[in-house]
Amino acid sequence: MTKTNPGRFFEDYEVGEVIRHAVPRTVKMGERALYHALYPARHALHSSDAFAQICGLPFSPLDDLVTFHTVFGKTVPDVSLNAVANLGYAEGRWITPLWPGDTVTATSEVIGLKQNSNGRSGIVWVRTTGRNQHGETLLSYVRWVMVRRRAEGPAPEPVVPELAAAVAVEDLVVPEGLNFKGYDFGLAGEPHRWGDYAVGEVIDHVDGVTVEEAEHMMATRLWQNTAKVHFDATLREDGRRLIYGGHVISLARALSFNGLANAQMIVGLNGGAHANPCFAGDTVRCWSEVLDKAETAAPGVGALRLRLVAVKDGGESAPTLKGSDGKYLPHVLLDLDYWALIPL
Amino acid sequence: MTKTNPGRFFEDYEVGEVIRHAVPRTVKMGERALYHALYPARHALHSSDAFAQICGLPFSPLDDLVTFHTVFGKTVPDVSLNAVANLGYAEGRWITPLWPGDTVTATSEVIGLKQNSNGRSGIVWVRTTGRNQHGETLLSYVRWVMVRRRAEGPAPEPVVPELAAAVAVEDLVVPEGLNFKGYDFGLAGEPHRWGDYAVGEVIDHVDGVTVEEAEHMMATRLWQNTAKVHFDATLREDGRRLIYGGHVISLARALSFNGLANAQMIVGLNGGAHANPCFAGDTVRCWSEVLDKAETAAPGVGALRLRLVAVKDGGESAPTLKGSDGKYLPHVLLDLDYWALIPL
Amino acid sequence: MTKTNPGRFFEDYEVGEVIRHAVPRTVKMGERALYHALYPARHALHSSDAFAQICGLPFSPLDDLVTFHTVFGKTVPDVSLNAVANLGYAEGRWITPLWPGDTVTATSEVIGLKQNSNGRSGIVWVRTTGRNQHGETLLSYVRWVMVRRRAEGPAPEPVVPELAAAVAVEDLVVPEGLNFKGYDFGLAGEPHRWGDYAVGEVIDHVDGVTVEEAEHMMATRLWQNTAKVHFDATLREDGRRLIYGGHVISLARALSFNGLANAQMIVGLNGGAHANPCFAGDTVRCWSEVLDKAETAAPGVGALRLRLVAVKDGGESAPTLKGSDGKYLPHVLLDLDYWALIPL
Repeated sequence: MTKTNPGRFFEDYEVGEVIRHAVPRTVKMGERALYHALYPARHALHSSDAFAQICGLPFSPLDDLVTFHTVFGKTVPDVSLNAVANLGYAEGRWITPLWPGDTVTATSEVIGLKQNSNGRSGIVWVRTTGRNQHGETLLSYVRWVMVRRRAEGPAPEPVVPELAAAVAVEDLVVPEGLNFKGYDFGLAGEPHRWGDYAVGEVIDHVDGVTVEEAEHMMATRLWQNTAKVHFDATLREDGRRLIYGGHVISLARALSFNGLANAQMIVGLNGGAHANPCFAGDTVRCWSEVLDKAETAAPGVGALRLRLVAVKDGGESAPTLKGSDGKYLPHVLLDLDYWALIPL
Repeated sequence: MTKTNPGRFFEDYEVGEVIRHAVPRTVKMGERALYHALYPARHALHSSDAFAQICGLPFSPLDDLVTFHTVFGKTVPDVSLNAVANLGYAEGRWITPLWPGDTVTATSEVIGLKQNSNGRSGIVWVRTTGRNQHGETLLSYVRWVMVRRRAEGPAPEPVVPELAAAVAVEDLVVPEGLNFKGYDFGLAGEPHRWGDYAVGEVIDHVDGVTVEEAEHMMATRLWQNTAKVHFDATLREDGRRLIYGGHVISLARALSFNGLANAQMIVGLNGGAHANPCFAGDTVRCWSEVLDKAETAAPGVGALRLRLVAVKDGGESAPTLKGSDGKYLPHVLLDLDYWALIPL
Repeated sequence: MTKTNPGRFFEDYEVGEVIRHAVPRTVKMGERALYHALYPARHALHSSDAFAQICGLPFSPLDDLVTFHTVFGKTVPDVSLNAVANLGYAEGRWITPLWPGDTVTATSEVIGLKQNSNGRSGIVWVRTTGRNQHGETLLSYVRWVMVRRRAEGPAPEPVVPELAAAVAVEDLVVPEGLNFKGYDFGLAGEPHRWGDYAVGEVIDHVDGVTVEEAEHMMATRLWQNTAKVHFDATLREDGRRLIYGGHVISLARALSFNGLANAQMIVGLNGGAHANPCFAGDTVRCWSEVLDKAETAAPGVGALRLRLVAVKDGGESAPTLKGSDGKYLPHVLLDLDYWALIPL
C-alpha cells in the first residue's frame, strides 16, 4: 500500500461526511509582507495598524483573501487533487478577522453529490469552514468541483444543495468594533464614499499586471496549495503552469483599489467563476460593476455588492463576457461577485 | 466623472502646496526578510539585533533604503504617475531609524516649478517627508521629475529652488544612542575602518547580480509603488518592464558590502541620477568612490561621502561614465552620492 | 591592497584554525513565511504554533533546514568562495531548535587538508558550528570542499579526518520538551507512524516542482549565501545560474511530506552528495528509502534514517543512481542521508 496521498475520487465522498483537513497554519506579519510583495494591495485597513485603529480595530488584520487562500489551500489535498474543474462558489461569509499570530484549521462538509451522465466523473459540493485557534469561525463558504471517478460505477442518489444567489445583507458580519466614523479619506487614497456609488455603475481599474511563473508559484505555495498543475511544467506540452485561480482573484482585487480604495473589507462571497485559465505572460486587467448597495448596523459602515471581472489580452475593452452559446469568451479570466464594506 | 486616479499633470501643481500622500504602511519583520531575499544585503547592523545592540541601538532597524522606498512609493500616485523622467535627488536626510512595527506616512511640498519651452511638460520639485506614527520625521529629501501637461497652456512663473550640492556634515543626524566603541569588525565582515579610506579611492565591488522580472516586480510592489511601467508588459514592444530605479539603488548598495561592509547606515542623500533604464536580464555590477570624509559628534562614528555607480553589460571596466556630449554612456545605470556612517 | 574579499585559497587554511564567520543574522517570522513561499513545506510542527504546542514545544521553531542554510550561508565567504566542488557532509547534528527572534552566528574549525596530486587544488574539511545569541549550539556538521590554490606550491602534511558513516542514535538530540504522546495524525496529514515504516521501504513522493531563476536566487540571498555562480548569468555561456545545492535539499525535503508527513524534525545529517547541478527549468522529483530505525529516550519519539534522492528529467523512474563507473547518472541531483523524528 502506498503511503502517499492519491487524493479522493468521486466515489469516496458521502453526503453528510465532515472532512478534517490537515496541516494547521500560523500566519503572521511575514505572510502579510509577502501578500504586499505578490499583489499590488493598497487598501489602508490592511496596510496600516494606525489606520485600522482609526477604524476601531486593535490593529490591522491580514487581508480577507489571506483567510480565503489559507483555508482553500488546506482543502486541496482532500477536495480537488483529482478535480477536473473548479465550478463555483456560494454563500461565502467572513465572520472573524484573521489576526497576525492566529492558527488556521479547516473542515469541509460534503453537502451535495451528482454523478455526470458519462459515469466517469461527478460534481461534489462542500461547505468549508476555516477556524482560528480559539475555535471561532473565520470564514465559511460553499464550493463545488468536478471530480473524477476512480472507476466507472453506479451513481449515488443525486443531492443538489439549494444555494442562495447572494449572501443576504442581514447575514453579512461586520467585524467587532469596526466603524467608519473617524474615517480618513485622504489617507485611504480616494474621496468616494458609499453614497457616491450607483447600482449599475462600472469602474475600469485601468492598471495591468503581467504575471510571472515565479510569482504565482510562490503565492500558491504560501497557501500550502499542493495542486500539481500549478508547479509542474511537465504536465503541459507548452511547459506553462496553470495559475491558481485565487491568484487572479487577489490580483484583481488589489488592482480594484484604483476606483474602490474605500471598499476596505470583503465580507461576503456570492459567487464566482474562473472563466478561463491564466498563464505566466498574461497581462491581467479588471473592472467592477456595482450590483447592489446596503447599509449595515455598524456606525458609518455601508456595503457594496460588486462584480469584479478580470480579463487578459486587451479584453478590457470587449463589451461582452459571454458568447451566444452562453460560454465565457476566451479573454475572460474571472467573474466574481462579492460584498465589501465601505464608509457611508 | 471617473473614480480612478488619473494622476496629476504639470498644471495641477502649485508652489507651496503640501500634498498628503495616501495609504499609511506598517512595516515589520516580514518586510525585513523580504529585503534580504530581494537584495544581497549583509550589513550587520541591519541583519542582527545582537549586533545592533553592540552599537547602542535597542534592536536592528529596517534598512535605511526600506525607509526610502516606502516613502517614495507613497509619493508615486501624486507625483510621478504622469512623469516622463525622474531627474534627480538632493538634500536627503535620514532623521529617525525605521523600527519594526512603525507606520509610515508621507507628505510632499511643491517647492519648484518650471515649464519646458515646448509647452507640453515641465519640471516639478517636491520636498518629501516621511513620518512614523509618532509624527517624527524618518526621512526628508528633494526630488524633481519631468511631468506632462494635460493640455498646452501658459507657463507659471518659474520657481527653481536652490539646492545644496551635498548635505553638510553638521546636518547629518546620527541615530540616538549609536556608537561604534565596542564595534566588532570580525562579525561585521571586514577590518577597514574610517581611517583606512582615502578621498579619491575607488572600490570595485566585484560581484554581479542578474535581475529577473519576478524579483523587481515583487520589490516594487512591496513599496506600494504603482507606476504602470514596472508591471505591465504591454507598454513596450519588447514586453520588458522598466525596472524601478530604487531597485537598482538597493542592489548596488547591497553589493557594495564587499569593500564597504562597515559603512553601516545611510544618513544623507546628496544627489543621484538614474542614468539609463535597467531591464530584466541585465547583470548589475557596481563600484564606489570615496568623495569626502568627516567625523561626527557621536562616539567612534565617522562619515564617508560615497559615490556609488552601478553599470551593466560589462561596463565595470569602462573608465568613463559620460560621453563627450556630457550624457551618461549606455552602460551606466546609476550614479548616486550619499553619506554613510562607519567606525572611526 | 584591495578592500574586497578575494576568498581563501587552499594554502590559506591550516588544520586547527577556527574561522569566525561574519554577519550575525536575526531570523523571525518573515523568514518562516518566505520558507513557505519558496518551498512546498507542510510539516505541521513547522507550520503551526498550536501543533507545536501539542508536541510539547513553546511554539513552532523555524524549519531545521533554515538553521542549516543560515549557518551554511555564513561560511561561504570564508570556505567556498573559491571552491571547485562541494564534496560532502558528515556528522551533522541539530542540538537546539531555532526560535523566531534568535540571532545566528557561526564558526568553522579546519579539521583536514589534502592537496590534490595536480598541485592546483586541495580538499579542505571544516567542522562548522552555528550558535544562537545565548551561545548555545544550534547545529554542528562537517563539510568538505575542493578549493583552488592561489599558486602552485608544496603540499602540506595531509590530514584526513575520520568521519562517522552515520550519526549514532545515541548522539541524536531530541529538542527539550518534545513528545508525541498527544500527537494528532489527522492534523499532521497522514496516519503512518514509526512502526509503519520498514527498513528498505522506498517511498515515491510523486509531486514535481519546476524551478525558476527568481525563486532560487531569492532563497539563496535569504541565507546571505554570496557564491557568485548562483546570481551572475555572465559566468556561463548559456546564461543559466547554478542553483545552490541547499535549494534542492529544501525542495526535496518539502516534497517528501507526501509519504513522510510525520517525519517532523531533522536531527541528524549522515551524509550527502550534490550529484549533478540543478538549473532553472528543471523539474525536481524525489523519493526516499528507509535506511534504519531507532527509538529515542523521549516519550513517543522514534527516529527514521532516511535516504532522500532528488532527480530531474524523468529520472524518478530510473532504477539506478550510478553508472558502472561508480559516478552518479546525469539525472540525479541529490543523494542525502539524514535522521528524522517521527511518532512511535
